Amino acid sequence: MATAGKVIKCQAAVAWEYNAPLVIEEIEVAPPQENEIRIKVIATGVCHTDLYYLYEGKHKAGFPAVLGHEGAGIVESVGPGVTEFKPGDKVIPLFISRCHECRFCKNPKSNQCEYNWSSQKSAVMCDTDSRFTCRGKVILQFMGTSTFSEYTVMNQMAVAKIHDDARLDRVCLLGCGISTGYGAAINTAKVEPGSVCAVFGLGAVGLAAVMGCKNAGASRIIAVDINEKKFEKAKILGATDCVNPKAHTKPINEVLAGMTNGGVDFSLECVGNVGVMRSALESCVKGWGVSVLVGWTDLSDISTRPIQLLTGRTWKGSSFGGFKGKDDVPKLVLDYMSGHIKLDEFVTHTMKLDQVNDAIHLMKTGGCVRTVLNLSSK
Amino acid sequence: MATAGKVIKCQAAVAWEYNAPLVIEEIEVAPPQENEIRIKVIATGVCHTDLYYLYEGKHKAGFPAVLGHEGAGIVESVGPGVTEFKPGDKVIPLFISRCHECRFCKNPKSNQCEYNWSSQKSAVMCDTDSRFTCRGKVILQFMGTSTFSEYTVMNQMAVAKIHDDARLDRVCLLGCGISTGYGAAINTAKVEPGSVCAVFGLGAVGLAAVMGCKNAGASRIIAVDINEKKFEKAKILGATDCVNPKAHTKPINEVLAGMTNGGVDFSLECVGNVGVMRSALESCVKGWGVSVLVGWTDLSDISTRPIQLLTGRTWKGSSFGGFKGKDDVPKLVLDYMSGHIKLDEFVTHTMKLDQVNDAIHLMKTGGCVRTVLNLSSK
Repeated sequence: MATAGKVIKCQAAVAWEYNAPLVIEEIEVAPPQENEIRIKVIATGVCHTDLYYLYEGKHKAGFPAVLGHEGAGIVESVGPGVTEFKPGDKVIPLFISRCHECRFCKNPKSNQCEYNWSSQKSAVMCDTDSRFTCRGKVILQFMGTSTFSEYTVMNQMAVAKIHDDARLDRVCLLGCGISTGYGAAINTAKVEPGSVCAVFGLGAVGLAAVMGCKNAGASRIIAVDINEKKFEKAKILGATDCVNPKAHTKPINEVLAGMTNGGVDFSLECVGNVGVMRSALESCVKGWGVSVLVGWTDLSDISTRPIQLLTGRTWKGSSFGGFKGKDDVPKLVLDYMSGHIKLDEFVTHTMKLDQVNDAIHLMKTGGCVRTVLNLSSK
Repeated sequence: MATAGKVIKCQAAVAWEYNAPLVIEEIEVAPPQENEIRIKVIATGVCHTDLYYLYEGKHKAGFPAVLGHEGAGIVESVGPGVTEFKPGDKVIPLFISRCHECRFCKNPKSNQCEYNWSSQKSAVMCDTDSRFTCRGKVILQFMGTSTFSEYTVMNQMAVAKIHDDARLDRVCLLGCGISTGYGAAINTAKVEPGSVCAVFGLGAVGLAAVMGCKNAGASRIIAVDINEKKFEKAKILGATDCVNPKAHTKPINEVLAGMTNGGVDFSLECVGNVGVMRSALESCVKGWGVSVLVGWTDLSDISTRPIQLLTGRTWKGSSFGGFKGKDDVPKLVLDYMSGHIKLDEFVTHTMKLDQVNDAIHLMKTGGCVRTVLNLSSK
């Protein structure tokens, strides 16, 4: 393309500081360096993790930055050494890399690439040698991805090449939330046919977990949320029962135990609240119940009584649903295209990049499942 | 036998109240009722769980009782309906029953028999219709077993029939501690060949966990205890490294991470201390580390940061090493007889029943691995 090798000026939503609105700015995006590709971002979801680091997390050092990590786009140009991508390829940026060489990449049990780990040491989960500048300052790339920008640059080990016919304003959701919830049920909990499941929290991640439980063959899926407006969508995605903890005087784990002869086989916490994490574990049946942390938080401890585990429960967690994204996201795209997984149902709002603060407000107030920002049609 | 159908008067160590020395008394042991068998106890280990309920646990209501749950003996007589045992059979009493009919017995993932559960609702983990009386009072059967008595009565669903040639003053240890630690490594952690393991706490349970890691093919077994006198026996049972946390200024999880390129594959907590449980979890490698609670405590919460699980660690636990005792303990007896598992190395002291308070003192002060009380040769 005519822009290859040149700095691209484009629009991006810049987080100049912790706990402040994003600002639409013109930024400069440098050409890709060795093993890097520059991506024209077509669409991006707004995920709670963006908010977490902007408002709740303690990564204050990581600003200014461009947030956004649930995007899809088209390769604009590639740097030296890139052989697996070419301009025009449809791609999904990944916040977990896949070097294929480290002990984590080589182990089928984990998606925690060493390359990703080391980068997580910095506040923005990437090297500080960002390709972004604005008003003379380096702008950091949040989670390495920074999809709240019309262009971004990534190492090819953190990019998934997807089918040419994929609808980017849908499959962008596979860059985080849907893969995270769906995979937590399929890969981490390993939900079994005929089992009884509970999903706590019915945002996009929780709804995707419901879908995962259903696709795994669960016979009963109990959807739990304090916002009953979420129940309709949960039922569309596979929930068989919906429970509002606030409608009961007993603790939710006792409510679920009463509904299920002692507890569920699998529970998934998709809120990111340590109290709910405890409830989810303690809602599991003794003997073999498995509870999975999916919601992201790290501000305080999770706790339970030892006897909860000593009597046979398992407490685990995953990030990005345990998927090795570079290999697995292209397959998930095909699963969407074949109808095996749903994405359309998750998109409740569509906006432009300059409405990003509205989208964030909508998410903070629970008014959406997912808002997709279309960056290409301004 | 001449005693069949009659009340037997015999010696037992009675715990009249919480937090007081046991008292050797003559008790009356009623004949076995339907589906019950009366057992002449030949030998019994003294396990920390006896102490826990006598001194630390909050089961004050469960007295007077006869403690002891790590015994072996010979069937004296059987009640109506008992077909699988006959007088003279060698047996091991079990504190977890096996009815073969409940959903837990039918599920290969669990050893938590429903019959056992319901009985655990009482303070002494058994029905209150004990077969023991003393001085006109009913004496409860602790954990259903009460092996600190020359005779005890149990339901046949909680008794394992073992090989006629088994040495009872050794295989009694399979009634609790050795099965618990060994099984936690083999069945619960599912330690893999070539893996790196850490065992926290080198009492009998921890040493048995070391043995389990070794038999599972672990390439490196790091034994952790603040009492370095325990290290020699740990090495005999398979430990490749021994670490005293007090000899380091860094937290033990950081010490182990430094020794193992980021953490161990499997850790087993065999102390029963919630702080050590956290250390054991956090000593595991991200991505796939599995930590198992083995030590028994339920006086306070276990805690950790969510990110410990979100990055791929698993926290689980088991009781009695996950063994379905009625089926599995006879096999473990054969494993001992064939040399596949060791028991002799665990027996550091041998005493008579009337020395039970000395044995308890020895355990409280860390002076033994296991003391076996011989009840038959007084």
